[in-house]
Amino acid sequence: MSDLPKRVEIHEEGPREGFQIEPGPISTADKIALIEALSLTGLAHVQIASFVNIKLVPGWADAEAVVAGVTRRDGVHFTGLWLNEKGLLRAIATGGLDLQGSVSNCASEAFMIRNTNRDWAKNREVQGNQIELYKKHGIEVRRGGVMAAFGCNFEGEVPVSRVLECISETLALVAEHDVTLPVMMLADTMGWATPQSVKRVVGAVRERWPELRVGLHLHDTRGLGIANAYAGLEMGVELFDSSVAGLGGCPFAGSNGKPAAGNVCTEDLVFLCEEMGIATGIDLESLIAVAELAERVVGHDLPGSLMRGGSLASLRAKLN
Amino acid sequence: MSDLPKRVEIHEEGPREGFQIEPGPISTADKIALIEALSLTGLAHVQIASFVNIKLVPGWADAEAVVAGVTRRDGVHFTGLWLNEKGLLRAIATGGLDLQGSVSNCASEAFMIRNTNRDWAKNREVQGNQIELYKKHGIEVRRGGVMAAFGCNFEGEVPVSRVLECISETLALVAEHDVTLPVMMLADTMGWATPQSVKRVVGAVRERWPELRVGLHLHDTRGLGIANAYAGLEMGVELFDSSVAGLGGCPFAGSNGKPAAGNVCTEDLVFLCEEMGIATGIDLESLIAVAELAERVVGHDLPGSLMRGGSLASLRAKLN
Repeated sequence: MSDLPKRVEIHEEGPREGFQIEPGPISTADKIALIEALSLTGLAHVQIASFVNIKLVPGWADAEAVVAGVTRRDGVHFTGLWLNEKGLLRAIATGGLDLQGSVSNCASEAFMIRNTNRDWAKNREVQGNQIELYKKHGIEVRRGGVMAAFGCNFEGEVPVSRVLECISETLALVAEHDVTLPVMMLADTMGWATPQSVKRVVGAVRERWPELRVGLHLHDTRGLGIANAYAGLEMGVELFDSSVAGLGGCPFAGSNGKPAAGNVCTEDLVFLCEEMGIATGIDLESLIAVAELAERVVGHDLPGSLMRGGSLASLRAKLN
Repeated sequence: MSDLPKRVEIHEEGPREGFQIEPGPISTADKIALIEALSLTGLAHVQIASFVNIKLVPGWADAEAVVAGVTRRDGVHFTGLWLNEKGLLRAIATGGLDLQGSVSNCASEAFMIRNTNRDWAKNREVQGNQIELYKKHGIEVRRGGVMAAFGCNFEGEVPVSRVLECISETLALVAEHDVTLPVMMLADTMGWATPQSVKRVVGAVRERWPELRVGLHLHDTRGLGIANAYAGLEMGVELFDSSVAGLGGCPFAGSNGKPAAGNVCTEDLVFLCEEMGIATGIDLESLIAVAELAERVVGHDLPGSLMRGGSLASLRAKLN
């Protein structure tokens, strides 16, 4: 009936995404407390800081202080985000991160121009320079990514063939630099994906590059995030980005004058997986407690469902 | 890859469920306004009132006034809920409803006892009497229903075999009264379903009774409502209950001291269907406007996602 994986790998992006979009201010101590709590749930990958322009993203002016303040733990990879050499150098200088390079592309040139002020040709040049930078600093380039892989607020539908071209371009680019990418993330940046389009796009990518590990970065803009994750699981996808409590979102991708809802919610995704017998390695009760902490830290309700409904494991425990 | 239907039938339960659980008070005029707005969206079935014990459910003390106040429209069936003869007689007396009988069963006897104070044997007797009552009043018995078909807060997992037994019992009961049920609703009353269990249960029911129309009444307690609906669609289910804006819930089914989240959200479900090419007959933009009205009427945020994210059709319209 389906091709559900036995185990999934979930990359937590709540801190980085959340602390960027929240009107805040959120104290450095609160950021550290949330990251510490996340690192004790069994999550093996947590993106904990963003090294971007402080004037544009004041919520991350304390990126260095956050990294300095968190306790590193065996088996937990703390990662960061940067968009240029200046940011990368800041991330390297912290000495506290598991640095990993990525190569970014976008299936909508219109969105790329709005989001980064680059057209495709310019992006190719920038990404090529970044790959060289990673090589210079001995940083492994592990992930490729295609933004707007399921549709775009500024271009509308994105044909599957365009996604394949983007991946093909990215693979050709890294090959020029003698790099092999093991992972390709497909991002539903503006919440256009449906379970059907997830199956269509993932299926086409896996058909063409059977050896490439395909991951999903899903947004829950229109309430289909978990259904889209399920469709991905059915296609055998076993790598997801998500945000605890549904923290975060993209301030540039909203419609109707509202910011777009954030990433699919980590604990809801973990619940979906664990209830279907798919191992996550994550302790769901601890994660729900972190989601509740996240609400206290930001000072308002967050979108996650499970922290309101409660886990089934906790109900089963009461019955036994 | 799947067995998606071409068209689905969605039964709106927001007014009945929502006005019951909301701490209110909600004015009769507001109830009527919301129902009127719903009746203009293309929804063909709207459950608009509950004829239950006024002392236990004061939010429905004005059921008669609501029915008297709404404008009947061609092609829109206004239905009601009752739990005993007294309620049925009140519903009949309004003269303004499309009365339809149903036969209720529950896969968890523990939940049935808590919810209705009946064990299975007593329920069989009560349902039999109700069928005779429907026959006496010339009311067609159309729907059977199995509550807690996917799990129970008080019993835990519900085996598929138990669901099949419940349906078998119900079909035998109606046959004793010379009635044939065309529809069987499977209800995830306490939010235990996963996409996988939806497929398993629906598959088993369809295998055993290929002629029986299977519908889903899904709750979104733990954030899987839309994913579960998608799993149902993949199994060919084309009949769903839902609530605009996610209004409502079950005051008796909560966990962790909180009331359970309500039915799956109608506009999110319509969006899921329409984006995958499944016709609903419903105008999504009108329905989003009703969801926004529902929030104004109850005076607080409701769970629906689409009214925050906005439809894709509205974005496409701007692009063309």
